[in-house]
Amino acid sequence: MGNEFRLSDLADRIGARLVGDGEKIVAGIAPIEEAGPGQVTFLANPKYARFAKDSKATAIIAKEVVPGVQTAFLLSDNPYFAFACAVEAFHPPVRPAPGVSDKAVVDPSAHLGRDVTVAPFVVIEEGAEVGDRTALFPGVYVGKGVTIGPDCLAFPHVVLYHDVRVGSRVILHAGCVIGSDGFGFAPTAEGFRKIPQVGTVEIGDDVEIGANTTIDRAALGVTRISRGTKLDNLVQVGHNVVIGSDTVIAAQAGISGSVRIGSRVMIGGQAGLAGHLEVEDGILLGAKSGVPNSLRVSDARVWSGIPAMPHPVWLRMATLLPKLPELFRRVKRLEEGNNPRGG
Amino acid sequence: MGNEFRLSDLADRIGARLVGDGEKIVAGIAPIEEAGPGQVTFLANPKYARFAKDSKATAIIAKEVVPGVQTAFLLSDNPYFAFACAVEAFHPPVRPAPGVSDKAVVDPSAHLGRDVTVAPFVVIEEGAEVGDRTALFPGVYVGKGVTIGPDCLAFPHVVLYHDVRVGSRVILHAGCVIGSDGFGFAPTAEGFRKIPQVGTVEIGDDVEIGANTTIDRAALGVTRISRGTKLDNLVQVGHNVVIGSDTVIAAQAGISGSVRIGSRVMIGGQAGLAGHLEVEDGILLGAKSGVPNSLRVSDARVWSGIPAMPHPVWLRMATLLPKLPELFRRVKRLEEGNNPRGG
Amino acid sequence: MGNEFRLSDLADRIGARLVGDGEKIVAGIAPIEEAGPGQVTFLANPKYARFAKDSKATAIIAKEVVPGVQTAFLLSDNPYFAFACAVEAFHPPVRPAPGVSDKAVVDPSAHLGRDVTVAPFVVIEEGAEVGDRTALFPGVYVGKGVTIGPDCLAFPHVVLYHDVRVGSRVILHAGCVIGSDGFGFAPTAEGFRKIPQVGTVEIGDDVEIGANTTIDRAALGVTRISRGTKLDNLVQVGHNVVIGSDTVIAAQAGISGSVRIGSRVMIGGQAGLAGHLEVEDGILLGAKSGVPNSLRVSDARVWSGIPAMPHPVWLRMATLLPKLPELFRRVKRLEEGNNPRGG
Repeated sequence: MGNEFRLSDLADRIGARLVGDGEKIVAGIAPIEEAGPGQVTFLANPKYARFAKDSKATAIIAKEVVPGVQTAFLLSDNPYFAFACAVEAFHPPVRPAPGVSDKAVVDPSAHLGRDVTVAPFVVIEEGAEVGDRTALFPGVYVGKGVTIGPDCLAFPHVVLYHDVRVGSRVILHAGCVIGSDGFGFAPTAEGFRKIPQVGTVEIGDDVEIGANTTIDRAALGVTRISRGTKLDNLVQVGHNVVIGSDTVIAAQAGISGSVRIGSRVMIGGQAGLAGHLEVEDGILLGAKSGVPNSLRVSDARVWSGIPAMPHPVWLRMATLLPKLPELFRRVKRLEEGNNPRGG
Repeated sequence: MGNEFRLSDLADRIGARLVGDGEKIVAGIAPIEEAGPGQVTFLANPKYARFAKDSKATAIIAKEVVPGVQTAFLLSDNPYFAFACAVEAFHPPVRPAPGVSDKAVVDPSAHLGRDVTVAPFVVIEEGAEVGDRTALFPGVYVGKGVTIGPDCLAFPHVVLYHDVRVGSRVILHAGCVIGSDGFGFAPTAEGFRKIPQVGTVEIGDDVEIGANTTIDRAALGVTRISRGTKLDNLVQVGHNVVIGSDTVIAAQAGISGSVRIGSRVMIGGQAGLAGHLEVEDGILLGAKSGVPNSLRVSDARVWSGIPAMPHPVWLRMATLLPKLPELFRRVKRLEEGNNPRGG
Repeated sequence: MGNEFRLSDLADRIGARLVGDGEKIVAGIAPIEEAGPGQVTFLANPKYARFAKDSKATAIIAKEVVPGVQTAFLLSDNPYFAFACAVEAFHPPVRPAPGVSDKAVVDPSAHLGRDVTVAPFVVIEEGAEVGDRTALFPGVYVGKGVTIGPDCLAFPHVVLYHDVRVGSRVILHAGCVIGSDGFGFAPTAEGFRKIPQVGTVEIGDDVEIGANTTIDRAALGVTRISRGTKLDNLVQVGHNVVIGSDTVIAAQAGISGSVRIGSRVMIGGQAGLAGHLEVEDGILLGAKSGVPNSLRVSDARVWSGIPAMPHPVWLRMATLLPKLPELFRRVKRLEEGNNPRGG
């Protein structure tokens, strides 16, 4: 990509302590199995230390020096963070050039900040506001009265229904839909009557939303994703959900309506949460869990399973499940008074 | 917003019986914890009656008066329905203005009804028909030979593949895809050979389809979603599935090919149904269930679990699962003749 | 549809052996319950042989003659393949007419092959290449530096982020997103720091990707879907995943980052695989399975359940799960020395 650094400069830039020759030049970053001379690599997990021994990389970002390895080290207490900085050093983010395409349709009442990018086939409806330096890729739809803060990226075909509010430095991946109607119907003798969904969605600063993820507007009030929270692809967030800050939700998880999720929560892929429950700050929820009730830290910090149970219980249970047929046989033998072990 | 009503007029309009002063003016609707003076609120569930006591709302929509609460009441046997009507009274639906954008591409052979809305960047292919007053938001794709009835809404980027048929008053949320190829391949020695998917999809009247939901066309014949059925976001409906009327399917549920689902069925989020099975009218299926076989009302009306079992069995089983490690210990103790309780 | 065949010609064309009158004319193909005179039908599964007895079809594609049935038979060792050929004979694939719409935006530095179709509202960015006869439906986005081989189909609103590489004869269904950022963040005291995702995605020849499926680009390196592999709708493929050839993944399955899946693997709908594990060639994984560890053929070829276990174990376990409440009662009775069966 063209960027190259003296190791000592790279160390400064990523906040790492250099062990080795600072004059060496590095010009790229690669996974530990693939990195060659002139490249930097990354050892996140000490259990892959054996790869370090065979690595031909010029320098390894790590928490500590791996004994017996001759390459330079870039040491950091948070090597994952140092790695992020190094990737960015070699691959500085490229923003699309500012400008409003004459193939976009921007309502005259909309307000665009400075240096925005509005690509072809974008539609910006009445009264919408787009912050400085925000880039809207082709086909993005910005509904009536939407506000988007500065320095956001909305990839192709993102859809923001009317009145949705998006903070600063938000990244919206292709095809995500924010502000679609919540799923609410009143049963009647003649079938279901739609409950109009007249609330909205608020997305905090520094949020990232994955491709094709869907976030429904509130029935009344607000569906809220707070500052710094990250949602992966194909996640479903129901109406009136409130999610705290710095929470991470992996792909295909589903959050039913009116759930309240705290801050610094981590939710695994394909997990599902029933409606109206609460997940306290700092809870970790395993992939594919099914959560029927609120999760409290006082009961456990890590939960897994269907239904969700404290993770250590789930681990033991999961090991025993395949032995269930054998257990049934053992109980039968006991009932028959035919006990091979005991008296 | 702007709409305001005398309480007695609102009561008439939503078919409720007023208890209290009909001359009072209300100008909005809000959740029970947030509603203030001049607003109406809603008590769906008697277990939240305590909120009614603290409410500052001017009137509460409910099934019956909550003793000791001084606000006016709007009573209905179906308070959820009355609530839907009240929300609509305060927030009358806004249709986009009719008209065909000169930035849309409409094939000359397509037929558009009266007062349709065709937004910029819509494509309507050869021979398609769009009914009166139907609105197509930006980027909607209407394939060759598609027919859409009157009074439909298709939000941005909805995709209707060729020959799909959509009824009246249908709501299609952003990014849903109707009529993509079913997933069918013939294994051969050289790899998979695609089975051409030459059937279609029919969507009945008053159906609503969630954002980014996918409904595959039939291999041969028709995939059918019948009148009044509601699908949430990110649902998958495989080829040749037939779904009855007034059925509700929550987000991220997956219906495999050739499944037949009856009418008035309710399917929870993330539930999955294996191919070629049948779910009888009126069945309720819990969230995250996995259904390997047909579900008959004569066996149970409510089903849950993986594999799906009658709901009461699932509930007991789910309670016992975390005790499985203990059960293994207890059986071991019995086998060792070391029984702490019995003889 | 117009196409009609003498049975003997159809037999030649689909590589089947005719039993019956080769002069008869057939003009369509339909499911076995619906096929009438002049139509061909298909008996894939001998367990539906009873339908053959009642069929009014003129000919049945099958593996062998069903005794007592008077219609003609088109016999094939691979009747599913013969069926695919027959469907194609009656419904030859229709490609959109070649040509570049003046409503598309094609960067002057992009390279388009011969006879490509570029529909309205397509965007092709700088340096992209599109192979001969490839068709891009309305709203397809082709990012900077993307390459697409010949004879591909990209249905409406497919999004290819920058630098993604797509092989030949690839089918991309509406709304699928290829090359969105992988989900990677370094935790810091101030919240999450995004790890730039600077790798790419490679899609091999003859791959098919379902509607609204998402495939993330690698953090470093490549996410790879190899030749002939088929992904259904709403599948999630995380960053740095490598999938072999001729593998089939059903709807809503989720593959976490850095998973390696072999060739000729079959993964059921809604299955989920944890990060960094391996699935060997030829493994079959049941729908809704949850896979925490690598799957080896030496342990079992077919796996199911949460957590995934060898399929026969899962089957027995699944039968016993609903009997768990009873087992707890039986053990309690044993502990109380109150054993109804044994001594």
